[in-house]
Amino acid sequence: MSRPRSTTRDLERYAGLFASRTREMKSSAMRDMMAITQRPDVISLAGGLPETGSFPPESFAAAANRIADESCARALQYGPTEGLDELKHCIVEVMAAEDMRVHPEDMIVTTGGQQVIDLVTKTLIDPGDVIIAEGPTYPGAVPTFSSYQADVVHIDVDSEGMRVELLEDVLDRLDREGRRPKFIYTVPSFQNPAGVTMSLARRRQLVDIAHRRELLVLEDNPYGLLRYEGAPQPTLRSLDEGVYVMYLGTFSKILSPGIRLGWVVAPPPVLEKINLGKQAADLCTSTMSQLLVRAYFDQGIWRDYIDSLNEIHRGRRDAMLDALAEFFPGQAEWTRPAGGLFVWVTLPDFIDTTDLLARALRENVAFVPGEGAFLDGRGRSSMRLNFSGSDEDTIREGVRRIGEVVAEQVALYGTLTGEDRAPAPKRAPAPAEEPQPGDAKGARVLPMRRRRAG
Amino acid sequence: MSRPRSTTRDLERYAGLFASRTREMKSSAMRDMMAITQRPDVISLAGGLPETGSFPPESFAAAANRIADESCARALQYGPTEGLDELKHCIVEVMAAEDMRVHPEDMIVTTGGQQVIDLVTKTLIDPGDVIIAEGPTYPGAVPTFSSYQADVVHIDVDSEGMRVELLEDVLDRLDREGRRPKFIYTVPSFQNPAGVTMSLARRRQLVDIAHRRELLVLEDNPYGLLRYEGAPQPTLRSLDEGVYVMYLGTFSKILSPGIRLGWVVAPPPVLEKINLGKQAADLCTSTMSQLLVRAYFDQGIWRDYIDSLNEIHRGRRDAMLDALAEFFPGQAEWTRPAGGLFVWVTLPDFIDTTDLLARALRENVAFVPGEGAFLDGRGRSSMRLNFSGSDEDTIREGVRRIGEVVAEQVALYGTLTGEDRAPAPKRAPAPAEEPQPGDAKGARVLPMRRRRAG
Repeated sequence: MSRPRSTTRDLERYAGLFASRTREMKSSAMRDMMAITQRPDVISLAGGLPETGSFPPESFAAAANRIADESCARALQYGPTEGLDELKHCIVEVMAAEDMRVHPEDMIVTTGGQQVIDLVTKTLIDPGDVIIAEGPTYPGAVPTFSSYQADVVHIDVDSEGMRVELLEDVLDRLDREGRRPKFIYTVPSFQNPAGVTMSLARRRQLVDIAHRRELLVLEDNPYGLLRYEGAPQPTLRSLDEGVYVMYLGTFSKILSPGIRLGWVVAPPPVLEKINLGKQAADLCTSTMSQLLVRAYFDQGIWRDYIDSLNEIHRGRRDAMLDALAEFFPGQAEWTRPAGGLFVWVTLPDFIDTTDLLARALRENVAFVPGEGAFLDGRGRSSMRLNFSGSDEDTIREGVRRIGEVVAEQVALYGTLTGEDRAPAPKRAPAPAEEPQPGDAKGARVLPMRRRRAG
Repeated sequence: MSRPRSTTRDLERYAGLFASRTREMKSSAMRDMMAITQRPDVISLAGGLPETGSFPPESFAAAANRIADESCARALQYGPTEGLDELKHCIVEVMAAEDMRVHPEDMIVTTGGQQVIDLVTKTLIDPGDVIIAEGPTYPGAVPTFSSYQADVVHIDVDSEGMRVELLEDVLDRLDREGRRPKFIYTVPSFQNPAGVTMSLARRRQLVDIAHRRELLVLEDNPYGLLRYEGAPQPTLRSLDEGVYVMYLGTFSKILSPGIRLGWVVAPPPVLEKINLGKQAADLCTSTMSQLLVRAYFDQGIWRDYIDSLNEIHRGRRDAMLDALAEFFPGQAEWTRPAGGLFVWVTLPDFIDTTDLLARALRENVAFVPGEGAFLDGRGRSSMRLNFSGSDEDTIREGVRRIGEVVAEQVALYGTLTGEDRAPAPKRAPAPAEEPQPGDAKGARVLPMRRRRAG
């Protein structure tokens, strides 16, 4: 404790020892901010934190006490790498709630959903191999893909999710170059970070492409049950029935990220390799977490809890959309998610959101700069805002502070260029004035600016 | 559930998609057996399961209820990648119990100790890079090293642990070949699987080599506090003070593997890279597990619990050594661990322990075949036996069954070769007849057969 920490242990001494992948490893934009955003005076709209404050502590206590009474020694012991059967039956139940039928043997329980992305990438990617992903894509997948030195090709999204017609073009081009993507990574429902949902037509198209071209797809579906309006879409997994679609599920957003429980469903040969990867990575997933969730599911309230979560999240989403309309300048555009945790805001081109974040932090508010959601340097004038992790008043205040910083930038630009680009904040055109309840497909979602894919 | 599982999803369809590392990934011998050894009629001396049945359930309940009362929302939420400060202070306390002084900022909390091995290897190893490890080495590290396509060079061990004088020769040879090892992996105390402990002289020598040659060392010390006789040895970390020694600790063996909590202490530049690797791998370690351990430590009984564990483990070790002396043939040799969980048995050369395991499983008893502890095909007539996971009667019966299968093989060999190599089981010469309490260095430990290193 008292030993002075040497400052001579500098990078130089060890740099020669690092793997080449280490040089490419960079921090996810989200995670870097954790330290700052843990300060109580900072309003963080950055993290992907679900609401956990409304989880009934008595339910946690009851589940834990049941473990103490019935299975303490087992909860404290190692378990099988693939996970406990008891938990797998909970997972079957969760997937059935989205109309998927799976067998416990088709899955491996993982240390959160993030580990699925890591293990799938580890299993399939050699340096230079191609992964197809939405643009923007989940910021937490960016360092994972980088750590295996993947070449990520982004496909633009619009209000109906990944633009699958562009995907065909990209695949043709790669084909001509003799490059075959190892897998397509997608978050079809309430995408992180864009908040958009893939239409049914595109889901069918995507599964069709996977079958025609024999391509694996990793469907990342943490938010499917967090729908605040409209009718559910079938998952890619349910359209594909498990031939080419690998499915990532997690308890993080429907129960708790702090217990670190996710799962992957994949074709048996792939699952077998993922299992080997998991053995090497962390032996097995927490037995205690698994038995705790089993005990919680036996209480029979897990769907009611999701319903209560969705009530809370819906109010927070609306608070965010209202605040954006009130406090963001007219040149800003944003998505209107029908579920999930995030709104994606696109500002005028002349604003760099990474620079903006530094100013925002001075105002004690945080967001995720858009470039963290791309591996090709795009996204520099976009930001991801989370509405699940703060209460409505806090969201409103956070958006107000960001809006102020944005307005300053707009005004500064106007002064510098002579253009008057700093109108008084006004309601953004589409999302708030034309709320269209119903299917996410039908909902009016502000389009991403369309760029050429790849 | 009712959908028939396709048998046409064969490996061929997906094989072309696997990464080259995937072809080299093989299952740890230990983990493969988990399914079999979970059958209640099987006596497993295979796994590295610590005793968890004696952990007081009321202590678990009290810790969990405190979380429910005080910090439920936080326990269920994401935490910082590097771990919670509260837990880091427990870790400082655990390391102080082995005379190590560390600062909370010097460490990252991980999903079990296994993740440390994975992250360190990921950070440092490019395909073909050299890792130095004991021979035999921890069987769970074997698939990890393989998954990063490391070239592992084994250094033989004897009763005083890694033969550090051979290490110098190997380093010289590698130097002549222009190859610099990225790190040296060692379990100095109560080695897994050999059960031997590195002498103080060799510890000093090893740290000296690391400094002279600027080589990183990963000291894996899960068992340091599980000493059943003799005086503690200083850790490599305490001799080095954190310049070249990275330290792996875990709560798995002193509390519970089911909570998946380990840690790594490393020089800041290395720690920073490990942190990036962890972000990509699983975002953060279970907040719930961390707060649970914090609450448990606040009960002030953690050292008493280890004392009680050591009482139990000591009795089990003695039961195993007695049973080996009684039931194993005279040609067998084994180590006499002063702590930890394992005994390493070496049988006559003509016995292949992987074949033997198949026979043993028919007698409902399991062990880890020795070849799982090498990456170069050695170890085929050795086995690892665990004494911490079964009670004394079960250990005795398990060893009796294995002894019988071994005796059959010895008799069969005698019949085939005409040699009489099947004497009646008798007490093995050294370990049981000359029990030497005291320092592991002084304890008579049967030597591994010595082979040329590398």
